[in-house]
Amino acid sequence: MTEEGVLALTCDLIARASVTPGDAGCQALIARRLSAAGFRCESLRFGDVDNLWAVHGTDGPTLVLLGHTDVVPPGPRESWCSDPFAPEIRDGVLYGRGAADMKGSVAAFVVALEDFVAAHPDHSGRVALLLTSDEEGDAVDGVRQVAETFRKRGERIDWCVTGEPSSMKTLGDLLRVGRRGTLSATLNVIGVQGHVAYPDKARNPIHQAMPALAELAARRWDDGFETFPPTSLQISNIHSGTGANNVIPGELQALFNLRFNPNWRAEQLERECEDVLRRHGLEYTIRWHRGGEPFYTPEGPLRAAARSVLGRYCGGAPEESTGGGTSDARFIAPLGAQCIEIGPVNASIHKVDENVSVADLQRLPGLYRELIERMLLD
Amino acid sequence: MTEEGVLALTCDLIARASVTPGDAGCQALIARRLSAAGFRCESLRFGDVDNLWAVHGTDGPTLVLLGHTDVVPPGPRESWCSDPFAPEIRDGVLYGRGAADMKGSVAAFVVALEDFVAAHPDHSGRVALLLTSDEEGDAVDGVRQVAETFRKRGERIDWCVTGEPSSMKTLGDLLRVGRRGTLSATLNVIGVQGHVAYPDKARNPIHQAMPALAELAARRWDDGFETFPPTSLQISNIHSGTGANNVIPGELQALFNLRFNPNWRAEQLERECEDVLRRHGLEYTIRWHRGGEPFYTPEGPLRAAARSVLGRYCGGAPEESTGGGTSDARFIAPLGAQCIEIGPVNASIHKVDENVSVADLQRLPGLYRELIERMLLD
Repeated sequence: MTEEGVLALTCDLIARASVTPGDAGCQALIARRLSAAGFRCESLRFGDVDNLWAVHGTDGPTLVLLGHTDVVPPGPRESWCSDPFAPEIRDGVLYGRGAADMKGSVAAFVVALEDFVAAHPDHSGRVALLLTSDEEGDAVDGVRQVAETFRKRGERIDWCVTGEPSSMKTLGDLLRVGRRGTLSATLNVIGVQGHVAYPDKARNPIHQAMPALAELAARRWDDGFETFPPTSLQISNIHSGTGANNVIPGELQALFNLRFNPNWRAEQLERECEDVLRRHGLEYTIRWHRGGEPFYTPEGPLRAAARSVLGRYCGGAPEESTGGGTSDARFIAPLGAQCIEIGPVNASIHKVDENVSVADLQRLPGLYRELIERMLLD
Repeated sequence: MTEEGVLALTCDLIARASVTPGDAGCQALIARRLSAAGFRCESLRFGDVDNLWAVHGTDGPTLVLLGHTDVVPPGPRESWCSDPFAPEIRDGVLYGRGAADMKGSVAAFVVALEDFVAAHPDHSGRVALLLTSDEEGDAVDGVRQVAETFRKRGERIDWCVTGEPSSMKTLGDLLRVGRRGTLSATLNVIGVQGHVAYPDKARNPIHQAMPALAELAARRWDDGFETFPPTSLQISNIHSGTGANNVIPGELQALFNLRFNPNWRAEQLERECEDVLRRHGLEYTIRWHRGGEPFYTPEGPLRAAARSVLGRYCGGAPEESTGGGTSDARFIAPLGAQCIEIGPVNASIHKVDENVSVADLQRLPGLYRELIERMLLD
């Protein structure tokens, strides 16, 4: 039942071509099922983005399962072995855009929630599902906005399990217990244009910016934090000049990005960077974009329960990691929630022929359900 | 006669819209006049470029007047007070594209040569005019090619007077006795593309290139040479990155240019630069373009005669300078010629409403003629 249910629902979701920020009816389908199971469902639409908040139970500690219904674009159809929006099983593997990232996890959430409330209609605490259709895109009108709404109305979240595909080689081999923060900058350095033959009459913004940027790039910001890697700054773009080789340009633009651990907050990093720019005497403007503060879930009930469930389900203690990119958990953690991430193997995500093992997919609802039971029944 | 002749010929030349590398019939007009005056005229066409070599006399020391008939594009007509190719005199000033750079000088050359051979039909030595229509453009099929031809056939040039607009505020206030060399580079630094979240798996070419480029830009190459300013390197363009702020780019391209004095030859500078790139461990390719070696005319008969003529004509000793950009004299100097440059005020060149003072224009033929007489008759 559960095994067939999760496979069928995953296929139904993949068949809805919800390229970010599209939802293509996924959330309405899920809301119908969870409403039928006794959940109170609330649609939170911001801009072009659909968000679904479904909750069961009335008070006490709240466990949220967090996911997204949008997917990244599939690219050219002919690069895929089968239609990315026509789910197909070959040799025990389900293929389709979103199979691993993360319609499989979302379907498993739904089945786990249905099973849990059917078995424990009067459970203590609250269990909830939060979905967005803007995780792969701008991530502005998705969980960021929902979290803002929750903050205003005092919505309580104690524990959050994100279904992002965290596993490396086998299901459950990695338990994500934190993510780095991300901070981006668009820097414009202003010089004075002129002819290369008369450098005294110009001020070359390339020459001015290089020592400052080199210092920022070379800096060792820290030595890591717990299991976090060291904070790092990468210059991703640099542009200056008109193409002519006899003109000293008047302006330089550079984009850089910091991935930072909990040693830092974004505003501290902004101050440190601007200190360097000023010390080098640059005339500049800078636009900062705070992509998210880092989050970290230290040892505690959620992390211990997850370790135990993964150990039992997957045949070994998982690696507990704070690596990787970023996820919507960054918006939920600041509400005071402990956050972890557990999901299927990520080897094929964002690629052609994205896939998930049918066996892994069928084990996910039981895994999530057992985690819910550990947190709300024990 | 001479005064009216130079003005009329300048206007005839301006009316021919010879935007580089066009000649628009200027050289044919001049060849007809000089042939009538007894010059042997030879048209040297390379690619799209017209070159004219007109010579009078049979042996002995050779003095060449060097100029160009092409002009830079005028830009939008509406930015000009009058049509750039319809010469117009307002308040004693002649307006039109090329008035100062350098159809005025070319017309003055022609009139000076006509007057000189009329007065001294049996002068000693040879006097010649060399014109190109590719000074403002690529400068590949112009005087560069002519000089190559001359080298092959053993054409002798002792002295060369370029009519480039060298004067700063008043006619004759500056005598150019040398020019810096110019050397350009297109540098590609090769890295390894990756995600900014995983810098260990990538190699950022921006981070790699910056310290090396900063060292090149900061280097003091020399302290000048005679009246030459110090050699300088300017990075004119730098480009890397796809626009995305989460991707470490795989490649960086930088263009830089060196203006160098006779302390250096281009190949030495190339070696010095590549030593720096290698010392910083860069994986790179570089394409060098040698725009021209520097030239310098030390004290001697031509420089002394020019100083004397300018002093008498212009009421004071000229500044003797090696500043400024580059000119076609760079191709003639390596033939063993002493080279100087004397021409009208350059304040309006390459700008809208380019102009020359009619009074200055009318004094130029006499100035050039006296210089020819000093060199070939004294």
